[in-house]
Amino acid sequence: MTANTTPTTAFTELMAYQRDTEALAQVAGRLGWDQEAVMPRGAAEQRGEELAAIEGVLHARRTDPRLADWLERATADGPVAEAQLRQIRRDHVRATKIPARLATEIARVTSIAQGTWAEARRNDDVAHFLPTLERVVALRREEAAALAAGGDLYDALLDDYEPGATQASIGAIFDAMRPRLVALREAILGADRHPAPLEGRFPPETQMRLARELASAFGYDWNRGRLDLAVHPFSNGSGNDVRITTRTVEEEPFNCFYSTIHETGHAAYEQGIDQAYLLTPLGQGCSMGVHESQSRIYENQLGRSRPFTAWLYDRMTAHFGPLSTKDAEAFYAAVNRVQPGYIRTEADEVHYNLHIMLRFDLERQLFAGKLEAAELEEAWNTRFQQDFGVAVDKPSHGVLQDVHWSLGLFGYFPTYSLGNVYAGCLMQALRAAVPDLDASLARGDTAPATRWLRETLQRHGRLRSPRETIAAACGFEPSEGPLLDYLEAKFGEIYAL
Amino acid sequence: MTANTTPTTAFTELMAYQRDTEALAQVAGRLGWDQEAVMPRGAAEQRGEELAAIEGVLHARRTDPRLADWLERATADGPVAEAQLRQIRRDHVRATKIPARLATEIARVTSIAQGTWAEARRNDDVAHFLPTLERVVALRREEAAALAAGGDLYDALLDDYEPGATQASIGAIFDAMRPRLVALREAILGADRHPAPLEGRFPPETQMRLARELASAFGYDWNRGRLDLAVHPFSNGSGNDVRITTRTVEEEPFNCFYSTIHETGHAAYEQGIDQAYLLTPLGQGCSMGVHESQSRIYENQLGRSRPFTAWLYDRMTAHFGPLSTKDAEAFYAAVNRVQPGYIRTEADEVHYNLHIMLRFDLERQLFAGKLEAAELEEAWNTRFQQDFGVAVDKPSHGVLQDVHWSLGLFGYFPTYSLGNVYAGCLMQALRAAVPDLDASLARGDTAPATRWLRETLQRHGRLRSPRETIAAACGFEPSEGPLLDYLEAKFGEIYAL
Repeated sequence: MTANTTPTTAFTELMAYQRDTEALAQVAGRLGWDQEAVMPRGAAEQRGEELAAIEGVLHARRTDPRLADWLERATADGPVAEAQLRQIRRDHVRATKIPARLATEIARVTSIAQGTWAEARRNDDVAHFLPTLERVVALRREEAAALAAGGDLYDALLDDYEPGATQASIGAIFDAMRPRLVALREAILGADRHPAPLEGRFPPETQMRLARELASAFGYDWNRGRLDLAVHPFSNGSGNDVRITTRTVEEEPFNCFYSTIHETGHAAYEQGIDQAYLLTPLGQGCSMGVHESQSRIYENQLGRSRPFTAWLYDRMTAHFGPLSTKDAEAFYAAVNRVQPGYIRTEADEVHYNLHIMLRFDLERQLFAGKLEAAELEEAWNTRFQQDFGVAVDKPSHGVLQDVHWSLGLFGYFPTYSLGNVYAGCLMQALRAAVPDLDASLARGDTAPATRWLRETLQRHGRLRSPRETIAAACGFEPSEGPLLDYLEAKFGEIYAL
Repeated sequence: MTANTTPTTAFTELMAYQRDTEALAQVAGRLGWDQEAVMPRGAAEQRGEELAAIEGVLHARRTDPRLADWLERATADGPVAEAQLRQIRRDHVRATKIPARLATEIARVTSIAQGTWAEARRNDDVAHFLPTLERVVALRREEAAALAAGGDLYDALLDDYEPGATQASIGAIFDAMRPRLVALREAILGADRHPAPLEGRFPPETQMRLARELASAFGYDWNRGRLDLAVHPFSNGSGNDVRITTRTVEEEPFNCFYSTIHETGHAAYEQGIDQAYLLTPLGQGCSMGVHESQSRIYENQLGRSRPFTAWLYDRMTAHFGPLSTKDAEAFYAAVNRVQPGYIRTEADEVHYNLHIMLRFDLERQLFAGKLEAAELEEAWNTRFQQDFGVAVDKPSHGVLQDVHWSLGLFGYFPTYSLGNVYAGCLMQALRAAVPDLDASLARGDTAPATRWLRETLQRHGRLRSPRETIAAACGFEPSEGPLLDYLEAKFGEIYAL
């Protein structure tokens, strides 16, 4: 079909073809937003069919034999074009390993599974979710086997979210982090001085008004996005339609505010990518780990910093009146209060990675065939007691708390901690590049930080590999050291260790 | 590919293939809802690309050579299967006449055109919209020429919305309606007694609460739908995800309430279709005219009836306190107040069809090459003065008022009046079938009416042709007579003619 074309024509044809594929992938993604933010409940089955159909279209496009032909003939003029070809080839090779039937079945089953999980979580009913979970695990095991071609199943899944990462490489980082995190945790829990939490009731509508202010403060572009409520906060979409969601709990305003800042970090990454990459393979975040580095640095290193919380203290006082914390310093300590808790998304910076390690280890066992879906609840509860010293009181505080497994997102969790590690590195580099950072944060002005992140990292999208992306932004190879140093310094000071 | 299959296998394969096409058509439709109800403005260009890409997929599926093969081999077992094949063949034949390039270009251009129109309307700036309108007209002329294959262009477009209808057949109905409508209008405007309008301010949030009550009263299934605000009220989707929108104007609560009832009529039709037809070609309303018959009978013959408005009077008093109309009878007259107005969607039942006739005649001229897009504004204003005796004061009250032309929906408007004609026939049949209808309407109970409509009409979806659908429900062939009789009787009484 393209046998007579020149290399340049082949590249042009390939990119035109790919543009439609990228547009259709955006459409499929938008259905995910719709499902979680606005879809009526009775549409669940039909939505499963719709998602399966569009996944079938995407799979057919990614396995189209013309792609192999174009990829063989096309020549890249410069590093951007090279990266485009590399990503298209990667998607093509991956897709050709997966049978179309399996790809569409996963889309159908995980779409419906979400609703089943939500209902099970609402009712604390693991048994209601179990048959669905078993089906999802079986499908993803089948997919992993097809992708791994004899190699390790879990590594095959990891590579989807974090190209180049393996359980060995992630395990090594986690092994290095764990002792220092556990020691820090023990020191904090044994400290003499414990900050008081923020107490009171905070009307949800007012929370949402301040949440909008926070998204704006972190540079969210409202002309190319929107904020809605959802059960599970998430960000969605690339290019010029990047939406975020949050949630409100009347007694826990930080839940809403820091979820919003977190999702704004994800969205800012997507909104910050060079417009020249729109609807091309480079026009999205380069991995989940790098994505989390943006959401986590916005949320924690910037959003939970002493100067920024001083500004937030003023804004909360303006919105809600006098707070239970007596001053900005007490407020800063309340924001950063360390406490073992059940819920990952509400965890402090010290406990967060322990939540991830628990999930990482369970997932590895699941895909090594050492654990079955039916055994997950017990394995979770046992491990949680070990790591957190508390018994899980109900499944919605344990194995049912996260949406991920219903969506089949095994291998996704470790990228959260990888994101924390990357965020640690980026913060070190940012402090060097912007010496007066704290002065602007104290005014609620994040622009010097977000501008640096946009210029050094966000705008490049998927141009480079995840590690290269972080290294190029930081000027050094990423490691867990800067994150741990940051945590020890920050919490050592708050808890007077 | 299917050369060795049996007729039964061919039918099964065809229906499986078609199921995905229907699911993808639902996805494309949902993007329309998203665009008008929730999409951020900056996403307009990207959305155009997304819609073009999915239109490309749909066009490729509908022109797939396997369809011709399956259609040749498949045998239908019974009238339902026959109807399925008839519709698939119809879609296939239509699609093969349209070049893929044209199909995707129309999708892209009309998607972006909507935003341009909305901006032009907001600013009363026809010139801003004109280049876009010219492009849309040119594309639709090209499409009509491809479809008509030498025949009449406007008939080719009409057939899309109302299979079997032609400008001759519609023109004949309109010619028969016009003298009686004009005479009725003149008599009313010259009457001694004119009802007072409802006056006051009605908070939008309260309007929305009552709008939800009204949708419920007309049997809207909230488990399979939702109500949102949009600039232009519309209903969207088929099967188990059928959404409606409305709008609020503080001084004009009837605008919100009757738009809501109107869209509920459309949605009830889609929600009422036999679940066995889900994601098949029969699983949607059989034409725009029949669709409008449902929305208009819900809105007018039922919703603006004396007994139902008596119930609404009580509900409005409960929500808003005492009204400016002194009793239910004065309220009924206010709801049905006849007055020349600029806006079609706010028109009374007498003027409504005159609005449509104006658009129908302009569209016919446009596709006969007797009128150009640049001349539409003047032609509109001249005709409006003739028909309504009032000069158009600004474009948003004239040629810019409707979204349809930006979407390229030429040939759509006449189906509104056809719907009114059908609704007149259905109401006559309904009164015969449900003698105590008024007693239930006076309690706000529409179930006897909506149940009859569901059983005799809605559940059959696209099983029969539009005229057959109406005739089967009514027990007689449709004509304009019943509608005109109903209007003369109703308004003759209100205005004591």
